[in-house]
Amino acid sequence: MTLTIGERAAAMLAEAAAISEPGAGVTRLPFTPEHARANELIGGWMRSAGLKTHIDAAGTLIGRREAATPDAPTFLLGSHQDSVRGGGAYDGIMGVLLPILALEEFGDRPLPFAVEVLCFADEEGVRFPTALIGPRALAGTLDRNVLEMSDRRGISLRDALDGFGDPAAIGDIARPASTVLGYLETHIEQGPVLEAAGLPVGIVTAIAGIERHAVTVTGRAAHAGTAPMELRRDALCAAAELVSAVERICRETDQAVGTIGHLDVAPNVVNAVPAKVHCTIELRSAEDTIRTRVAERVAAAARDAAAQRDCSWQMERTYQQPAMACAPRLQDALATAIKTAGQRPLHLMSGATHDASAMADLCPVAMLFVRCRDGVSHNPAEYAAPEDMERAVVVLREFLKRLASDEDS
Amino acid sequence: MTLTIGERAAAMLAEAAAISEPGAGVTRLPFTPEHARANELIGGWMRSAGLKTHIDAAGTLIGRREAATPDAPTFLLGSHQDSVRGGGAYDGIMGVLLPILALEEFGDRPLPFAVEVLCFADEEGVRFPTALIGPRALAGTLDRNVLEMSDRRGISLRDALDGFGDPAAIGDIARPASTVLGYLETHIEQGPVLEAAGLPVGIVTAIAGIERHAVTVTGRAAHAGTAPMELRRDALCAAAELVSAVERICRETDQAVGTIGHLDVAPNVVNAVPAKVHCTIELRSAEDTIRTRVAERVAAAARDAAAQRDCSWQMERTYQQPAMACAPRLQDALATAIKTAGQRPLHLMSGATHDASAMADLCPVAMLFVRCRDGVSHNPAEYAAPEDMERAVVVLREFLKRLASDEDS
Repeated sequence: MTLTIGERAAAMLAEAAAISEPGAGVTRLPFTPEHARANELIGGWMRSAGLKTHIDAAGTLIGRREAATPDAPTFLLGSHQDSVRGGGAYDGIMGVLLPILALEEFGDRPLPFAVEVLCFADEEGVRFPTALIGPRALAGTLDRNVLEMSDRRGISLRDALDGFGDPAAIGDIARPASTVLGYLETHIEQGPVLEAAGLPVGIVTAIAGIERHAVTVTGRAAHAGTAPMELRRDALCAAAELVSAVERICRETDQAVGTIGHLDVAPNVVNAVPAKVHCTIELRSAEDTIRTRVAERVAAAARDAAAQRDCSWQMERTYQQPAMACAPRLQDALATAIKTAGQRPLHLMSGATHDASAMADLCPVAMLFVRCRDGVSHNPAEYAAPEDMERAVVVLREFLKRLASDEDS
Repeated sequence: MTLTIGERAAAMLAEAAAISEPGAGVTRLPFTPEHARANELIGGWMRSAGLKTHIDAAGTLIGRREAATPDAPTFLLGSHQDSVRGGGAYDGIMGVLLPILALEEFGDRPLPFAVEVLCFADEEGVRFPTALIGPRALAGTLDRNVLEMSDRRGISLRDALDGFGDPAAIGDIARPASTVLGYLETHIEQGPVLEAAGLPVGIVTAIAGIERHAVTVTGRAAHAGTAPMELRRDALCAAAELVSAVERICRETDQAVGTIGHLDVAPNVVNAVPAKVHCTIELRSAEDTIRTRVAERVAAAARDAAAQRDCSWQMERTYQQPAMACAPRLQDALATAIKTAGQRPLHLMSGATHDASAMADLCPVAMLFVRCRDGVSHNPAEYAAPEDMERAVVVLREFLKRLASDEDS
């Protein structure tokens, strides 16, 4: 029985998923015995596909295919090997395996650029309070102080990395921008857009910028029986209007999402008018100007909701990360490849951060999203269909062909 | 220096407040050494005012003044001696002391009815998981099983009561309804209505009925970055609309208040769309039909808010207590007394439960509310001004005079 490409991808992912700490789902943290075993397995697949492998100073497993000419630049494909605790079998690692399968197609046929498949050590940031050291080292943007950060057992990143990569040489692996054509990351969508559209793959327009705020609304506690409605200063009623405003404003705004994910009430008892509410607001948009405008409207809504109930309010920005636009030329090449594969090219934003966020400091980047069931991720139920992965492999091949013909012409 | 009646009331309350467990504010629980000392102090004041005192089988301190004729019925005045933990100096006990001061006025002058001042042991229900045994014993509605309930030290109510009252005789003190003219309770408002109206006292129309509901809204967790607004099933957005609906509906409805005092979000993290919200709804109204109608509108709002976001919802009634209307004739007598005292009679609902709630099973009841600062109660900051207490004493006297002339005519 011959397996399809999609079935092979599924079998490889299942084999990789078995390399995990004990417990439900996949737990594969960077610079651990599981990471070493995963690198061994994936490195074998890379070599079978004709790639020459090594692990760089940052612990990134790299499989390289040389170009037709020695001085040609390199196109990079890849994603990360690590998972969250109790995560799924697809997030990250699928974006390492599908390019390997795509490259098999080319056999010994030379391309006008070298190709590397990158298997980054740590994108999730579960073990250390930092992440993305692989792509940052390549882009030359790594802050070496992060090497002194420790995991919860007190092991420093420097010591953990030693034996995988080379902490002392991590500053030396930055690539000159002129040597890199671009970076394409394949990843499950981790959202429901492709599923809702009935499409196997989609083209990412940008990785959303993010801002987070901590909001406190302060009213006044009162007896739920003796305080008339018109004399109340109910902090939860004000906060509820803010929750509704975030929902309404973000629904009205293209390319923006907003979430109040955390909300605490005090004193939080059945018969007391709430005195205080703490909540978070998170806003994401593909365009920083849109996000800023949404934040202004949300702040105005918070002000009005509080003022109408004689409550005070505070809103403090606790985090901000700008949006990262994907390269139009690479998006166009993906669109052509998707059409050639017989699919409709759908463009969508990535709400989550990826290795591509850090790679954008080195070169033009693009992302190919693959449909995942129910939008579920970071969960053992995470799933992408073999047929969809097969379509993604075809798109990757067509993309590389398109890129090759552009380079040749 | 001669003290005013109001200053005397304040001094007496301060003396009573000193009888407390150690700690901030007043902590005086039933059937404790503090209770015994309070009864001794208050009993002395009763006897000084010409009342004959005894403690009944339920531990209620009673000061009695006989009528002009031996078979005349009795009018009851009073409230409770106990406090919450760390409570104030006014809640309850003020309604025992002001009637004592009001009765001084009459000296030996006979009234056409006997008068008793009742000092109930336990209204707050802090020590035992029950309360109101004093008024319930008088009304003949006491469930004797409550005597077997224990406090947190394992002492049963039966054992605690022994030495104060007589657990064995508690079934014998029920009053025949024909012997009781009515019950008037004086109490701080515990709310802001009189203060907002600039009035020292007010007439309670009814003690609100209460219903409580436990609500669960279930949506679906999603990544705050990857889930587009239109595909979310955000349980908090649905719950926020419910919070706003309770506020709006109760603002639109006279004589009703509604509160969402407790609300919990799951998973309650900054970057996850909320999957589930648990909250309570409490509705109170002077009219049960109004409360029922409000509950129906709130349930409809919950249904719509959930349906619009493809969330499911459950609403379960966990508690219900019907409203208790104050007797119109006694309200009228209070209104006349307040006008005679030079004040405007304002009618308001009692959102909180009182001894009067249980006394209503025995006889017509009325309540006189006294303005308290900032509506604060169950707190060491609880305060009623001496001038306001003096006005309440005058109103009580005028009320008894009005009642006497009604009885005579």
